[in-house]
Amino acid sequence: MAKVLIDISMSLDGYVAGPDDDVERLHDWLFSGEHVVSRANSTFRATETDAEIIRESFETTGAVIMGRRTFNLGDEPWGAEPAFQVPCFVLTHHARDTETRGETTFTFVTDGIENALDQAKAAAGDKNVTIMGANAAQQYLEAGLVDELQIHLVPVLLGDGTRLFEDTGTRQIRLERTRAIESPDVAHLRFRVVR
Amino acid sequence: MAKVLIDISMSLDGYVAGPDDDVERLHDWLFSGEHVVSRANSTFRATETDAEIIRESFETTGAVIMGRRTFNLGDEPWGAEPAFQVPCFVLTHHARDTETRGETTFTFVTDGIENALDQAKAAAGDKNVTIMGANAAQQYLEAGLVDELQIHLVPVLLGDGTRLFEDTGTRQIRLERTRAIESPDVAHLRFRVVR
Repeated sequence: MAKVLIDISMSLDGYVAGPDDDVERLHDWLFSGEHVVSRANSTFRATETDAEIIRESFETTGAVIMGRRTFNLGDEPWGAEPAFQVPCFVLTHHARDTETRGETTFTFVTDGIENALDQAKAAAGDKNVTIMGANAAQQYLEAGLVDELQIHLVPVLLGDGTRLFEDTGTRQIRLERTRAIESPDVAHLRFRVVR
Repeated sequence: MAKVLIDISMSLDGYVAGPDDDVERLHDWLFSGEHVVSRANSTFRATETDAEIIRESFETTGAVIMGRRTFNLGDEPWGAEPAFQVPCFVLTHHARDTETRGETTFTFVTDGIENALDQAKAAAGDKNVTIMGANAAQQYLEAGLVDELQIHLVPVLLGDGTRLFEDTGTRQIRLERTRAIESPDVAHLRFRVVR
């Protein structure tokens, strides 16, 4: 059964993007090492520990859900052959035909987050459904539909930008930390949502 | 030379207190283990790892700075013999005589955070000046006067309350993670501010 996972890089002060959607500092750890992970036309260069995390992420992801804004921001940098290589579902209010880029498909879902999740779970099989971007993460958290979080905690205070945990509801959500993998530039912290 | 340290428990979503200043969940790790740390009239009961962190904190703290609000909230629970047992400096706009409770003194500083820091450093000697509470932490961070942060990261999403990193300025502050100590209920993450 597919698990629903939020997987995102976050600054110590809680931002998943800086001002002007700048994620460069937060994604430094993906591009500043010597161990290469290649996928489609994308190349990541990380420390040995971090490269293992990147590899694991690709191997365990069966489908991706993202907001329209994340899609718009990513579409150009991801290029003609995005590294996802799994079915991606984009939450949007505007109907649009499914698009195929290399081995990645983008399906635009207009009838709500639960419907998108049903489609993503069906596509993911036994692998995870990964939620990308702050807005989608907030919606799925608030709806109580998230099973796990993997936060790549980056040692920086950005001071401004897009917060991951904003408008997630005022209900307390209990977590269990299930893993902590440290590397000099980032701490990969994994949590299970306790129901 | 005294270092200036922010030392605080924080939820994964960035809160250092929940609604109505509730810190019970965030301070669980101080009271839910079997290893006892006693100090004045206070008794902490933590896991072996966490008890070591508590002991270290008392041993390395030479003075404390806090906001008026933190003092007002803490005054009653801390009781007649607070566990600090070091000089404490309270940032306030209202002059008030120094008060002594057991081996702890509270000096009320009305002429700004730099003055309070000078007094605290003089009192701390070679030990650390610890900044307590979100508001004081924010002021010292924004002023660029903080040397280190120790965040006791608690696996919970509170959804509402007082954020640690709010109004800290929009300047990016580079950190170096210098230590990470894990225990099941909390991750003690230590950072150095890179100047």
